[in-house]
Amino acid sequence: MRDEFRADLHLVSQLLVDMAEATRSAMRQATRALLTADRQAAETVIERDAEIDELYRHVEERVCDLLARQSPVASDLRAMITALHVAADLERMGDLADHVAKTALRRHPSPAVPAELRPIFTDMATIADRMAEKIASVLAKPDADIAAELDRDDDAMDDLHRSLFGVLLGADWPYGVETAIDATLLGRFYERFADHAVNAGEHVVYLITGETAASPN
Amino acid sequence: MRDEFRADLHLVSQLLVDMAEATRSAMRQATRALLTADRQAAETVIERDAEIDELYRHVEERVCDLLARQSPVASDLRAMITALHVAADLERMGDLADHVAKTALRRHPSPAVPAELRPIFTDMATIADRMAEKIASVLAKPDADIAAELDRDDDAMDDLHRSLFGVLLGADWPYGVETAIDATLLGRFYERFADHAVNAGEHVVYLITGETAASPN
Repeated sequence: MRDEFRADLHLVSQLLVDMAEATRSAMRQATRALLTADRQAAETVIERDAEIDELYRHVEERVCDLLARQSPVASDLRAMITALHVAADLERMGDLADHVAKTALRRHPSPAVPAELRPIFTDMATIADRMAEKIASVLAKPDADIAAELDRDDDAMDDLHRSLFGVLLGADWPYGVETAIDATLLGRFYERFADHAVNAGEHVVYLITGETAASPN
Repeated sequence: MRDEFRADLHLVSQLLVDMAEATRSAMRQATRALLTADRQAAETVIERDAEIDELYRHVEERVCDLLARQSPVASDLRAMITALHVAADLERMGDLADHVAKTALRRHPSPAVPAELRPIFTDMATIADRMAEKIASVLAKPDADIAAELDRDDDAMDDLHRSLFGVLLGADWPYGVETAIDATLLGRFYERFADHAVNAGEHVVYLITGETAASPN
């Protein structure tokens, strides 16, 4: 019974790693769509969001099946609930990549991001990618130190988010309201992506160390 | 055992109703803060967000305790997982009310919303309030018809969201980029509040009818 539980738990972890990798890949492609007006990349992200949703449903089904068959308690039960949280965060990260791709597509063939903002979005995307990579990594091989780095990554993302508003509100912003609205929403998508990565990381840390995660954000 | 489970489940439902009511009250007050530059209302919402987070933790603890003690299967297990989903949506709705309140506070004593946009935000807030009320109502007394109305409310919210961009992008928008950024984010907060209400409603419908909820949004 115990070995069977371990095997089932391993399968759930593997599904979560698959979700994290799919989410990472989606945000990478969405960023490419955004920064190079790559229509096909945008369409791929949008099409493949359903696959991430499907993985989410698989995690839920497997967890429910496991709860029903094995009635885990204590840390095993905690692992199951944590898996549901992490899956929910990853599913939402996939949605945010989808939103970035849709914004790119809406402006295509024009670029949604003007030259002045490209360095900021390039940096935001780099951090988002690093965070998704860390989630995949700690899910595959638990490491509380790596998970804790996500907080620092999130601080860097918040700094970039503030710089973005600095540019938008600068006296010499030449692009008018429509471009500012796009940039505001895009900034929020990357920032929320990072928030969900932090949440997912906190859940994994909780699983590894037993220490309570900070309040949700 | 069965009676004990029913009593525990009832307690979880009551916590969810409390969360829905707290969320509704938070968004009402956040809207007042926004539309009447009411500083105290904004501060109250921000302070009390911790109470909603605390209710969320109570739901989780109680569900985990129940899973461990009673090992429910089939529809009872489904009810537990659904409670977790609904609690997560309500917790996030509380965060969004908090974001509206913080936006109001950041601009205080100036109004964050200019006269041209007040009718749209007033209508968005009315719909948000109606949706939160319906969630509280179907949690207290399951009713698939009321839950299904949430989809129509969400359509109305999406229409308002589109009108908002119409005003922001109109040739005669006189307020510049900063006010447009605030309005963009505020519009997103109300729209996301509605999305989470729809999700919560779908989970309740699933619980009542056994029909699968649509994909997450």
